[in-house]
Amino acid sequence: MLNFRTDLALERRDLYRKANNIKDEIPGIETNEDEKDEIKITRVKITNDEGANAIGKPIGNYITIDIKNLKIASEDEIQKAAEALGEELKKLYDIHLNGKEDILVVGLGNMGVTPDALGPSVVQDIDITRHLLKYAPQYLEEGARPVSAIAPGVLGTTGIETQEILKGIVDNISPKLIIVIDSLASKSIERISSTIQIADTGIVPGAGVGNARKEISKYTLGIPVIALGIPTVVEAATIAADSIDLFIEKLQEEAKSNEYLNELKDKDKYELIKDVLIPNDYNFIVTPKEIDGLIENMSSVVARGINISL
Amino acid sequence: MLNFRTDLALERRDLYRKANNIKDEIPGIETNEDEKDEIKITRVKITNDEGANAIGKPIGNYITIDIKNLKIASEDEIQKAAEALGEELKKLYDIHLNGKEDILVVGLGNMGVTPDALGPSVVQDIDITRHLLKYAPQYLEEGARPVSAIAPGVLGTTGIETQEILKGIVDNISPKLIIVIDSLASKSIERISSTIQIADTGIVPGAGVGNARKEISKYTLGIPVIALGIPTVVEAATIAADSIDLFIEKLQEEAKSNEYLNELKDKDKYELIKDVLIPNDYNFIVTPKEIDGLIENMSSVVARGINISL
Amino acid sequence: MLNFRTDLALERRDLYRKANNIKDEIPGIETNEDEKDEIKITRVKITNDEGANAIGKPIGNYITIDIKNLKIASEDEIQKAAEALGEELKKLYDIHLNGKEDILVVGLGNMGVTPDALGPSVVQDIDITRHLLKYAPQYLEEGARPVSAIAPGVLGTTGIETQEILKGIVDNISPKLIIVIDSLASKSIERISSTIQIADTGIVPGAGVGNARKEISKYTLGIPVIALGIPTVVEAATIAADSIDLFIEKLQEEAKSNEYLNELKDKDKYELIKDVLIPNDYNFIVTPKEIDGLIENMSSVVARGINISL
Amino acid sequence: MLNFRTDLALERRDLYRKANNIKDEIPGIETNEDEKDEIKITRVKITNDEGANAIGKPIGNYITIDIKNLKIASEDEIQKAAEALGEELKKLYDIHLNGKEDILVVGLGNMGVTPDALGPSVVQDIDITRHLLKYAPQYLEEGARPVSAIAPGVLGTTGIETQEILKGIVDNISPKLIIVIDSLASKSIERISSTIQIADTGIVPGAGVGNARKEISKYTLGIPVIALGIPTVVEAATIAADSIDLFIEKLQEEAKSNEYLNELKDKDKYELIKDVLIPNDYNFIVTPKEIDGLIENMSSVVARGINISL
Repeated sequence: MLNFRTDLALERRDLYRKANNIKDEIPGIETNEDEKDEIKITRVKITNDEGANAIGKPIGNYITIDIKNLKIASEDEIQKAAEALGEELKKLYDIHLNGKEDILVVGLGNMGVTPDALGPSVVQDIDITRHLLKYAPQYLEEGARPVSAIAPGVLGTTGIETQEILKGIVDNISPKLIIVIDSLASKSIERISSTIQIADTGIVPGAGVGNARKEISKYTLGIPVIALGIPTVVEAATIAADSIDLFIEKLQEEAKSNEYLNELKDKDKYELIKDVLIPNDYNFIVTPKEIDGLIENMSSVVARGINISL
Repeated sequence: MLNFRTDLALERRDLYRKANNIKDEIPGIETNEDEKDEIKITRVKITNDEGANAIGKPIGNYITIDIKNLKIASEDEIQKAAEALGEELKKLYDIHLNGKEDILVVGLGNMGVTPDALGPSVVQDIDITRHLLKYAPQYLEEGARPVSAIAPGVLGTTGIETQEILKGIVDNISPKLIIVIDSLASKSIERISSTIQIADTGIVPGAGVGNARKEISKYTLGIPVIALGIPTVVEAATIAADSIDLFIEKLQEEAKSNEYLNELKDKDKYELIKDVLIPNDYNFIVTPKEIDGLIENMSSVVARGINISL
Repeated sequence: MLNFRTDLALERRDLYRKANNIKDEIPGIETNEDEKDEIKITRVKITNDEGANAIGKPIGNYITIDIKNLKIASEDEIQKAAEALGEELKKLYDIHLNGKEDILVVGLGNMGVTPDALGPSVVQDIDITRHLLKYAPQYLEEGARPVSAIAPGVLGTTGIETQEILKGIVDNISPKLIIVIDSLASKSIERISSTIQIADTGIVPGAGVGNARKEISKYTLGIPVIALGIPTVVEAATIAADSIDLFIEKLQEEAKSNEYLNELKDKDKYELIKDVLIPNDYNFIVTPKEIDGLIENMSSVVARGINISL
Repeated sequence: MLNFRTDLALERRDLYRKANNIKDEIPGIETNEDEKDEIKITRVKITNDEGANAIGKPIGNYITIDIKNLKIASEDEIQKAAEALGEELKKLYDIHLNGKEDILVVGLGNMGVTPDALGPSVVQDIDITRHLLKYAPQYLEEGARPVSAIAPGVLGTTGIETQEILKGIVDNISPKLIIVIDSLASKSIERISSTIQIADTGIVPGAGVGNARKEISKYTLGIPVIALGIPTVVEAATIAADSIDLFIEKLQEEAKSNEYLNELKDKDKYELIKDVLIPNDYNFIVTPKEIDGLIENMSSVVARGINISL
């Protein structure tokens, strides 16, 4: 398998096609795209094992929503992005649920670390109904869906694997579907807090930062898991590798031919750079200066999108 | 049973003795007191059913720690209070645990509501070791106790009973003892964020504010539960009832005898006042203006106290 | 002068009329009322010295906006309240400004003390334009009004009187009008975070909690000062006095006549109660348990209202 | 003048000596170094115009304190760093003040943007005395120094230049010295929240991020200004340029000679890279993922250090 170094099915598909000189679609993969109001939606569907093996992801649906300029988004743009997210979620409920069955929303991450606060922040704004259905149904519309939500913390602050916490809760309250919100490491600084990947195949928390925890999926919890992954940090090595590509292109434009540079450009520099940066204690994980505002806006998009879908 | 309207075993004992004109100790109850460095510790031990029935609390240990002036406490006073708490906790571990067995710390409450934020705030400062013992034991001293911690949120924001969440976690990670931190409604404004009650008989969250949730105790979870209860709010009716007592005393001093007032003074005015306040939409639950600072200092005391004990 | 114990011109007018058995309007005072969408607006205008002396307030406009149930306000209700506030502010600009002159918004209070955080919280959401007019006018509509804003902190955390800070800023940047937002002590628990008083006569910060600072007004700063005062705390003595009134009424209903109680009812019990509570170290200043949410909603109302008006 | 691209006098001195092949000290500059408890202190003193011109900084004192591993600092290490800072500050007071004269502490930055929150966060923990000397001197030791503090906000949220705000305050309360705390852009990711530069020549806020505001110095305010500058962010171009240097070294080691790379290595790549990154909208300003904890620890160091010095 290629070393994709990205969790986005969309990017993996593009890398695979490029590496294998495939002009059309990869067998076992279907793709379509929509664009409206500056919001771009790409849907990658892996339909069989051939597709799954090609890009190293389980059979299932992978939807990427790209929102431009969330940093300076207006109330109106946030609402539109939330509606787009809500629509995509509803389609996945139709696949995985029978009518208004129980949903548990799980916000992964750590409230005290700004770029890791997205999950807990979203949970605060979810419209919870499960307890009202039990104790005060008069406040709800007839036929409301039971919704509960939890922010279980991270292994470093609880000492407990998130999967262990969720397993216990699922056993006790028996939801029929889980929505997990998680911060991802991005492979590209432009995607930070402006891309949402929706996958109905679950998640391995921390996988993006080389610190993989136990899988949260239908396989481990027994019910479907829709994962919303949002990039919020990037490795210094990624910034450097991207920069060097841009840099070499510029040098070539000016210096014209240089065989060594040509060769250099075709190599995968990430691993080389990481080898260089790590012994120098330099491969920091970084986040944009404006991360507080980015997280706040994205949290609005995701919480509203989920509320719309419910 | 008397209507005690207080969760503190100490106050119940005093009320019962007064109501029944008992000069000595209540049968089935033992009490002792310490005072050092402005910190007063009262230990009430219920030893049999007679004692339990008298004050309406299960057989077990109830320790009250009173700290004066926590609002303006210095670093040094916070440390002393934490050490006093740590000592009392260690004695309870000796009763309920065999050596360095697993402990789970649970911070009840809601981070977004200042007077209810104590539990989650304490959890942030607990020294967690369970995951290190598993993944990085080299960072711990030999024989360290496995400690995990969680802030499970409240029913209103999760839709899930805390007991349901904890039951699942206990089943999955098998701790041998739980420490629960909870904010209580106080019967006295002076106790707010200056009294800690330690009980080794568990807790019914929300009981103090007439909003009782499912019990968290050895009976429901299968392992001993040490509850740390700290008053952080008070009902307006309580303030009014206390004020009226003080007020009538003052009137009597000045006006001398007045039969009606005498009679009034001996009655329980709380229920009368509550009857008056509720239809006027007036029985607010209130907290002192300085609650942010009070919670911060108490959170330091409790987190350090627990860390010392572990 | 009567001891009004309230900053609201509206309440003072009612107390004065009651005390002096005035059926019609007090000479030198004009009043009118509007009610729409659960929002009640009362405008008290003091037109001459006779009116000013009667209720102990300078000649000027005093507008009270009452919003019901802000605790559970919807987005829509917040918007309506903001619009009502915006309209009233615009009318005052018409009186005190010539067209689009410079405005400085000042948020008094302390971000770290929840019931005192309203002013600084509002300032964060004001649309600032003064620097854009200077450095980037292309981002503004033609003819935009220069708006600046500051949260100067409180004497206890800065060591500097707010008036001293503002005087320096006014001298250096020459605004033509100041809007000051301040938290007040309420005389009634129901008004907490649900009443806004707008006065075009300035403010004495801390006056409501017996801790008066230097006046912020046209008299001291040389330019008109519109003060937005919002009650966020209440004294325990106030709660007790109100409760006792309700309590005595109830006793009378049941016990029928009791001369002493009649007499008691007509007295001003606040001072009596305060005398009783203070030596018992009991006259806490308190705030509702839900103060975080109340402040958040009121902050939205005020920030949007000001933005609409600008 | 060299294009130093660093605000640290220490780094400028090293760059100048390298560029000019100076083995000894630059004329007009004196340097000395201390190291104790993992804390390294370097003092650069510019004594005349020749030194000032060489490194492009005014005549004065520039002290750099380097603290290793502040991310995981213990209470004890924070205290030691604070004491080192306190000592250096006291030496500067001896130069610029006569005894216990008034000091105003100014925390620049924006509380709502984590990497820019250092200044306001420090201000919250400064021991303020100015108002006590006036209103409650009994709480202070005899001869206490008047200390006040303010967090004036940033141009983007106030619409007012910080210098304009400070000028007004200085005119009104007449301090004899100002201490300014500011977040800097770093030229090196390792210095983030682990280096403090103390300069007694004032500051140009925002200079490090190409967004220079009006100077805050003795020249503009009329009293000495001690600036504490702490790096908290870094440009992507800086990360890339540093990475490329490390990368090329590695390539050379392996590929041995390559004339073009040699040449490349000696060039200043920062400007080249910036030229490449800017049109690609890629030159983000970033901060480490752990910035919340880093700011919290550094804030403790600086606040305690200042308090010790006062």
